Amino acid sequence: MTVGDERVAVAVDVGGTGMKCALVGADGALVHTERHPTDAGRGPDAVVETILTVAEGLAGKARADGLSPTALGIVVPGVVDEARGVAVWSANVGFRDVPLRELASARLGLPTALGHDVRAGGLAEARLGAGRDAGHVLFVAIGTGIAAAHVVAGSAATGAHGAAGELGHILVRPDGPACGCGRRGCLEAVASASAVARRYAVLTEAGGPAAAPTEAVGPAGNAESAAAPDGASGGGPGRGRTMVSAAQVAARAAAGEQLAVQVWREAVEALADGLATGQALFDVETIVLGGGLAQAGAGLFDPLRTALRDRLTFHREPRLVPAALGDEAGCLGAALLALDQLETR
Amino acid sequence: MTVGDERVAVAVDVGGTGMKCALVGADGALVHTERHPTDAGRGPDAVVETILTVAEGLAGKARADGLSPTALGIVVPGVVDEARGVAVWSANVGFRDVPLRELASARLGLPTALGHDVRAGGLAEARLGAGRDAGHVLFVAIGTGIAAAHVVAGSAATGAHGAAGELGHILVRPDGPACGCGRRGCLEAVASASAVARRYAVLTEAGGPAAAPTEAVGPAGNAESAAAPDGASGGGPGRGRTMVSAAQVAARAAAGEQLAVQVWREAVEALADGLATGQALFDVETIVLGGGLAQAGAGLFDPLRTALRDRLTFHREPRLVPAALGDEAGCLGAALLALDQLETR
Repeated sequence: MTVGDERVAVAVDVGGTGMKCALVGADGALVHTERHPTDAGRGPDAVVETILTVAEGLAGKARADGLSPTALGIVVPGVVDEARGVAVWSANVGFRDVPLRELASARLGLPTALGHDVRAGGLAEARLGAGRDAGHVLFVAIGTGIAAAHVVAGSAATGAHGAAGELGHILVRPDGPACGCGRRGCLEAVASASAVARRYAVLTEAGGPAAAPTEAVGPAGNAESAAAPDGASGGGPGRGRTMVSAAQVAARAAAGEQLAVQVWREAVEALADGLATGQALFDVETIVLGGGLAQAGAGLFDPLRTALRDRLTFHREPRLVPAALGDEAGCLGAALLALDQLETR
Repeated sequence: MTVGDERVAVAVDVGGTGMKCALVGADGALVHTERHPTDAGRGPDAVVETILTVAEGLAGKARADGLSPTALGIVVPGVVDEARGVAVWSANVGFRDVPLRELASARLGLPTALGHDVRAGGLAEARLGAGRDAGHVLFVAIGTGIAAAHVVAGSAATGAHGAAGELGHILVRPDGPACGCGRRGCLEAVASASAVARRYAVLTEAGGPAAAPTEAVGPAGNAESAAAPDGASGGGPGRGRTMVSAAQVAARAAAGEQLAVQVWREAVEALADGLATGQALFDVETIVLGGGLAQAGAGLFDPLRTALRDRLTFHREPRLVPAALGDEAGCLGAALLALDQLETR
């Protein structure tokens, strides 16, 4: 192999706070990674400029290392029109109808793909990660929000307007809490990491002044086997204004703390309802859970598998597995999108 | 054109009570149609034998008419594994793992496709009917049950096990009525034609002995504009043991009858919840409603459009239109499946 012969894709995963960037080989291997702040408060033009500068820098780094950058993949959150290459609406990055693909390909002179962060993550998990043995995969990212990607035969469904896969905004609790989207009872409003933390804060607040906070220790166990009886009827340790994270709620539930058990079970049941709806519509072989909440491990997966099984009647039960690629999934997916479009040119 | 030159597909749409059969031209035109009873009570072997005999008869009729039967398409309800050509599970036809494609192609000597009735109907509506201008279509059949087909670029999603599109079995009312599938609060248990009829019967029963039944006259109007105030608090005309159909409930709602207005509104709201979930996940351009309930016309479509619009926040509103192909859609879809597989051989 001569110098410059090894082909790599330049990949940029733009988030609300940071950009994960990489050079990725044709085999999906991460050759080089770096991170940069997004600093979205500067406005969309400045963010676009940063993306382009970072991507240029990565391409230059590749050439300096004797690699040949052949394509660029950029993924952003929100509503993304892959076909037109336009970031239609990304609230936390401040984008509104930004023709990012055209801007980037003009600047770098590389064939460029623009994608959606969660769909790209799902694509990577389906082709390189936890779903790689399945032809039909549903990837669900559970963090501050909830979003999903339906991947069939190595391709993620985008929808007609780039807005497919909004599993976080399906109705699961008609009388449930208000969602950021303006409706009530969306899955995201009940079962996202932030919803779990909020719900626990409300219940502990209602439970009166704090006893000594019982910080759970050790890894999260099986929240079901540790389940205490029902009831929000006080008794839990009120924590005043201190927000307990979803991960801490999971740990406390595993340790048997009554309110945490209740909050965690409510979230697990809502998630199971959401996944059952997904399975009824998509009929996949494997559901891959990613995002922060999925790191609760067995404390999430064991009760969730049981709750999902309870909800499936005539349907085949999908495998329910944790994501394998960590927070590089979006970046790897951006690279796959970049490499894919080379094949179809 | 010489005799036998005009190519047709033989199409059979097997239902619980009857089989709709046709010869269909390459352009999707119905050249000949006939119907036969399914008589499912005779058991699966007898039903298979009838399907094969009817299909043979159709092929013979085509040849006798100077046409050339080139392929066979059979669609059945339930769970259908298109890839393997197996009717996995069809409760109302009595099928369980029937390798219908192989049996049919062996008998007729024609390349054969086996499909799912609703997915085939959706395929036909998306390519030849009400969705023909859209690349992303959700077809929803609302009758005794509720089922859907998601059609992208002229191909209906089957799922990993032939069970995709079960919109009737997504949760919309956690404390809702029991569903035939064994769960509670499925869309089908609240908003199917049979659910509407059941709910009206329950409420009128509860409303006490019948006054003179107020049979509504004229076509169903806009149930919204005719909407009376809330409340199941009696006062409606109890009908004793006589079951009023969903179509009659729609007509009575349009005429302003209080209980009918309530039942119809509950069904419309549940349907809107189900369609909003579908739109969040699929992001289609057009939703096509078929089946018996869709024949309520403006009495369904006007309030349903409004209710769906109320539920969409960041999503694009899909066109919501009635099916165009009537009850021949399944048969036309079977023909499309038959012709499609000729192209991929």
